[in-house]
Amino acid sequence: MTRSAAIIGGGVIGGGWAARFALMGWNVRIFDPDPQAERKLGEVMANARRSLPMLYDRDMPAEGTITFHNTIAEVVEGVAWVQESVPERLEVKHKVFAEIQAHLDPEAVIGSSTSGFKPSELQAGAKDPTQIVVTHPFNPVYLLPLVELVPGDTHDPRAVDWAREVMTEIGMYPLQVRAEIDAHIADRFLEAVWREALWLVKDGIATTEEIDNAIRYGFGLRWAQMGLFETYRVAGGEAGMKHFMAQFGPALEWPWTKLMDVPEFNDELVDLIAGQSDDQSGHLTIRELERLRDDNLVAMMRALKQQDAAAGALLNAHQRGMRQPLGDAVPLVTVRRTVPVDWTDYNGHMNESRYGQVFSDAADALMIHVGCDETYIANGNSYFTAETHVKYLAETHAGDAFDVASRVLIGEGKKLKAYHEMRTPAGEIIATCEQFMLHVNLTTRKSCPPLPEVLARVEALAAAHKDA
Amino acid sequence: MTRSAAIIGGGVIGGGWAARFALMGWNVRIFDPDPQAERKLGEVMANARRSLPMLYDRDMPAEGTITFHNTIAEVVEGVAWVQESVPERLEVKHKVFAEIQAHLDPEAVIGSSTSGFKPSELQAGAKDPTQIVVTHPFNPVYLLPLVELVPGDTHDPRAVDWAREVMTEIGMYPLQVRAEIDAHIADRFLEAVWREALWLVKDGIATTEEIDNAIRYGFGLRWAQMGLFETYRVAGGEAGMKHFMAQFGPALEWPWTKLMDVPEFNDELVDLIAGQSDDQSGHLTIRELERLRDDNLVAMMRALKQQDAAAGALLNAHQRGMRQPLGDAVPLVTVRRTVPVDWTDYNGHMNESRYGQVFSDAADALMIHVGCDETYIANGNSYFTAETHVKYLAETHAGDAFDVASRVLIGEGKKLKAYHEMRTPAGEIIATCEQFMLHVNLTTRKSCPPLPEVLARVEALAAAHKDA
Repeated sequence: MTRSAAIIGGGVIGGGWAARFALMGWNVRIFDPDPQAERKLGEVMANARRSLPMLYDRDMPAEGTITFHNTIAEVVEGVAWVQESVPERLEVKHKVFAEIQAHLDPEAVIGSSTSGFKPSELQAGAKDPTQIVVTHPFNPVYLLPLVELVPGDTHDPRAVDWAREVMTEIGMYPLQVRAEIDAHIADRFLEAVWREALWLVKDGIATTEEIDNAIRYGFGLRWAQMGLFETYRVAGGEAGMKHFMAQFGPALEWPWTKLMDVPEFNDELVDLIAGQSDDQSGHLTIRELERLRDDNLVAMMRALKQQDAAAGALLNAHQRGMRQPLGDAVPLVTVRRTVPVDWTDYNGHMNESRYGQVFSDAADALMIHVGCDETYIANGNSYFTAETHVKYLAETHAGDAFDVASRVLIGEGKKLKAYHEMRTPAGEIIATCEQFMLHVNLTTRKSCPPLPEVLARVEALAAAHKDA
Repeated sequence: MTRSAAIIGGGVIGGGWAARFALMGWNVRIFDPDPQAERKLGEVMANARRSLPMLYDRDMPAEGTITFHNTIAEVVEGVAWVQESVPERLEVKHKVFAEIQAHLDPEAVIGSSTSGFKPSELQAGAKDPTQIVVTHPFNPVYLLPLVELVPGDTHDPRAVDWAREVMTEIGMYPLQVRAEIDAHIADRFLEAVWREALWLVKDGIATTEEIDNAIRYGFGLRWAQMGLFETYRVAGGEAGMKHFMAQFGPALEWPWTKLMDVPEFNDELVDLIAGQSDDQSGHLTIRELERLRDDNLVAMMRALKQQDAAAGALLNAHQRGMRQPLGDAVPLVTVRRTVPVDWTDYNGHMNESRYGQVFSDAADALMIHVGCDETYIANGNSYFTAETHVKYLAETHAGDAFDVASRVLIGEGKKLKAYHEMRTPAGEIIATCEQFMLHVNLTTRKSCPPLPEVLARVEALAAAHKDA
């Protein structure tokens, strides 16, 4: 049965949660008294529907239903998870928790998106404190995998296990924080950098755009894939981490930063920052900026995925759980997905070169279907493609859904010939591919017949497909 | 004439500079009294030769010569740029500058890689203070584009212009800092984050690995492409930057960080950090970690390049300056490059799908050659590929060089048929492609003949190539 999550507060963060749950196949029930809530969620969903599926090279789960409800009592009915993203005011959160707990299934868990409060503060006075944990996400919630899971001292291990399971199932990385602390982990860094940045702008050392460039052309790229300590371990070189620390340690004593000094937060500072930000990005609407951000994140995360590193390794692990057996239909449907943004070109349509990707993925699915899987390859056998013949019949664009219908036309000895049709959801053929493959021994790099069990499956497919 | 740069100090940073200059076609002269200098540089060069060319989809300049010299007097002979990367001790730097300036061409400029000193401190007591500027890079210097250019109050605009020109030519982004300040810009942020991270580890809130994950699965991905302020502008949503600041402003008063408190930097803290770092990454050597870092950076920067965003937009701008006319040889050499790391698959060789990229790039070069360039396309005309036939004849791997020889076999009216051979440097054919293209009107999306000047060039190529 499809599970349901209740989303309390449907702003940028709550909306991001709603999108992630729904696109991962959960039914989503939303409570937000804002009369604009439905319109705002629609905009977040439009961004998320376009970008989240691009992170995966698989068919996504069927999207869950999204419903709006007028009371907390109603919205939490039958849900397995509640995500609270109301404003950061403790008395508001306490009131909301009390109302939730008056109606919620005792087995369900409440995750709070709070960035500033500790679980003990949230739990104070609750009917069941152990039902409340911090699950602090990062914007855009539908793309970034990090969620800080802070159970606090008073917790029920079963609730924490459930939180980990739910977060992992919807593609997030629950980083369990060992001890509760103001602002958890990541926001302490963001706060430190924010303060320093305000000083640099206020003192006229750098503009907002110059600071952004100082980050994104330099250490931002390092941090996106290795973080802080592993980057420094590498910087230490052969002499190692201790050597690096010995070099960098004394710098701690230097008065480089004005970190605990708080710049006076007045209209003048706000106008200065907002004005510079307008100069930098004012030619783009927030919607356009969101689209650029999401496209960049998708492209970088897909690049890391191809390296099986950092956030990309998380995606690969999540994706492995999504693979469905192909079944026995003729033709086999080997690919079912949308066109990701990194596949399009200056003509605005899917680049010629990416059709090769589509048909290569179709061949991979076919390979696994016949038993030429990771283990088979690790044991020194594989199929190599010798020749392909692609016909480009119609255009397709970023975000468009398609599938690939595949047939085995020849399966004899070391030879395999496949025929693929890439199709729109309406059945129009976008492109076709004839693919000639040879089975090879990966040690000798010479062609040879497949092992008997693979050969038997290839022959069976060829027999079933050739006249169909 | 090939220009020369002198590299004073050939460690991780100096070696990275040497690699970037040499791979961008400069001759490099190195002075480093370390008897291991040549071996160490060889290791940096091996990493750089593999990864830097992967950032570009073009033929690279011929690599400059690298020579080692025993004195500063000798190393600066005839050079147009000196890059100083000696240890961060002011008296050492002053001594090195005096020796350099006793022998250096007055038109050349000295850039210092210092992360901590201000230009006025470096310039104090120099024969010509205006010849010295700060050009502070980020590791790995051969991949990351950021260089902080700090001229200081006493500067010669011609020296600053030359610094900008040299840095841009070797593919870097010179961020000119408006006023000198301890640690320039980026390292102030790094210092703030480093302090906070040491506290979190010391207090047992998080391990080094947990902190790295908190960065790379969350805000690290945001910062790699938009930096700090543009990210927050987006987070502010429709209400804009002022609204965001009003929300976040009060947090400045909260005691979230322990930023100016300095943790006691003793053996216990060093052992704690180094031990956790060993647990996290000790199964990999520094060389292996460097390789992973470089592969990840290349893959992410190539992803941003495809989006023409952030560091990828810098690469595209730099690459545009590298395009050479194809000339009149038969066949035309349309592609000359190495296989980037994001093109390989689990079999360890260039993935089937990327051959489509190679031949699509070859077609793009051919298009520009016949006058179907950005302007032509912007005016509503282009060629679309209708059919390709690829034969895969030999394997190729990440870092391997190759070229593509292209012929126009048919060029009549709206039809164009090209034939491409992808070849190793030794001339072995890796793959071939027959490509059928149709000229289209981008408004009607229907085929039509090209404009007369393009048609004339296509016909001339077909006549020259068909019997050759």
